Amino acid sequence: MAPQRQALLLSSSNCHGYSILEFAKQEICNILKKNNVTELVFIPFAQKDYDGYTAKIKEVIEPWGFAVTGLHSYTNLIERINCAKAIFVGGGNTFVLLKTLYEKNLIQVIRDRVHEGSLVYIGSSAGTNVATKSINTTNDMPIVYPPTFEAIGIVPFNINPHYIDVISETHKGETRDQRIYEYLETAHCSPVLGLKEGSMLHIDGHKLTIKGIAGAVLFQKTDKKPLVIDPDTDVSFLFQQDKEL
Amino acid sequence: MAPQRQALLLSSSNCHGYSILEFAKQEICNILKKNNVTELVFIPFAQKDYDGYTAKIKEVIEPWGFAVTGLHSYTNLIERINCAKAIFVGGGNTFVLLKTLYEKNLIQVIRDRVHEGSLVYIGSSAGTNVATKSINTTNDMPIVYPPTFEAIGIVPFNINPHYIDVISETHKGETRDQRIYEYLETAHCSPVLGLKEGSMLHIDGHKLTIKGIAGAVLFQKTDKKPLVIDPDTDVSFLFQQDKEL
Repeated sequence: MAPQRQALLLSSSNCHGYSILEFAKQEICNILKKNNVTELVFIPFAQKDYDGYTAKIKEVIEPWGFAVTGLHSYTNLIERINCAKAIFVGGGNTFVLLKTLYEKNLIQVIRDRVHEGSLVYIGSSAGTNVATKSINTTNDMPIVYPPTFEAIGIVPFNINPHYIDVISETHKGETRDQRIYEYLETAHCSPVLGLKEGSMLHIDGHKLTIKGIAGAVLFQKTDKKPLVIDPDTDVSFLFQQDKEL
Repeated sequence: MAPQRQALLLSSSNCHGYSILEFAKQEICNILKKNNVTELVFIPFAQKDYDGYTAKIKEVIEPWGFAVTGLHSYTNLIERINCAKAIFVGGGNTFVLLKTLYEKNLIQVIRDRVHEGSLVYIGSSAGTNVATKSINTTNDMPIVYPPTFEAIGIVPFNINPHYIDVISETHKGETRDQRIYEYLETAHCSPVLGLKEGSMLHIDGHKLTIKGIAGAVLFQKTDKKPLVIDPDTDVSFLFQQDKEL
């Protein structure tokens, strides 16, 4: 068990009606201040333009009182993670992100430091997918082949970010709910948390809380319908799945 | 080069306003009759209920004058493919389908027999994805991890089935077009053909034609906008990408 984990997993950086990350400002500021963080290392590997992406996040977060540096600008990435107090893993393509993190040998060092409680993890969208048990429930297109779908494992279950389930009368592709239930039917016992845009999962040791404005939905193998979860609900029971950590 | 290939790659089995496979009936009957096929071997591995799925397809296709048997009901699958004249690879989850085809050692035998012109290939949705160069442009959720994303390679490019590009003002996930362009930007030179529901690609030797009622869209690395393709358009130029086959 890892009582120290400090993490904030956002469904997305953008939310309708808000500027980028605005809906999550209070939660991001709280977790960083609580852990005496003054500098955030940004990991832009889910997108192509590392400099541009880092500049965009810097422009949003620095006015909140935290310095932002891009991990890609350092020569020794593992060393930089080892001396960081907090990272922000940005969204983009989940397959590209996971593959790059493995190629740069960053998975294990991030996992170890988050689990020992010395590194605050903030992730958004693809950055949230790679923080969970595996990327099996990403919405992204598999444009590159990662060495495994297993991910950092800060939580022992899966998250589906940008969760939405619109049923189209004319389009015949599978709905989001069908896709997630197909995953659960393929011998997966751990649940899937669907985070609506504007929603996030706050991890404080063993305490898990849904934060933000939009709420979440929980899919479990034994339930026929997903469980609707309102903002500010304690979902610490999800750590009961945590047998390995 | 493989002048003999005979294949029909459907965007989906369902199309708004039609019963299952109805929009493709004429094309399916044509390709089977032209190749003197009286029996179709159905491959149900993209879904869980092999018997139920096979029964559903049998109910639709047998009244058209062709016997349908499920591949899963045979003990020696490779031998069954080797003596088949035509296969129908049904839709479902593309990752599950590709993984199962590799596990059962069916990729190479299907590839060889289609390329030598002795096996007619009909695929729908996931069955279309696995017929192309790779499954990198599937819309499906990666619920299982296949040994590679490389696929059967009947055509030397990618297809995106169920192609649609609806831009939502409120939902912030990537659009279909953005996802496909991200794929092309990741060093992929071969194009991506987006097949709208109700559309299919007909392969007759070196002649490629868009058939059906809905048309297609072609994404190329050098173009900023996808090219709209009407039904009954000859797209044989796509075989120019074919360097290996």
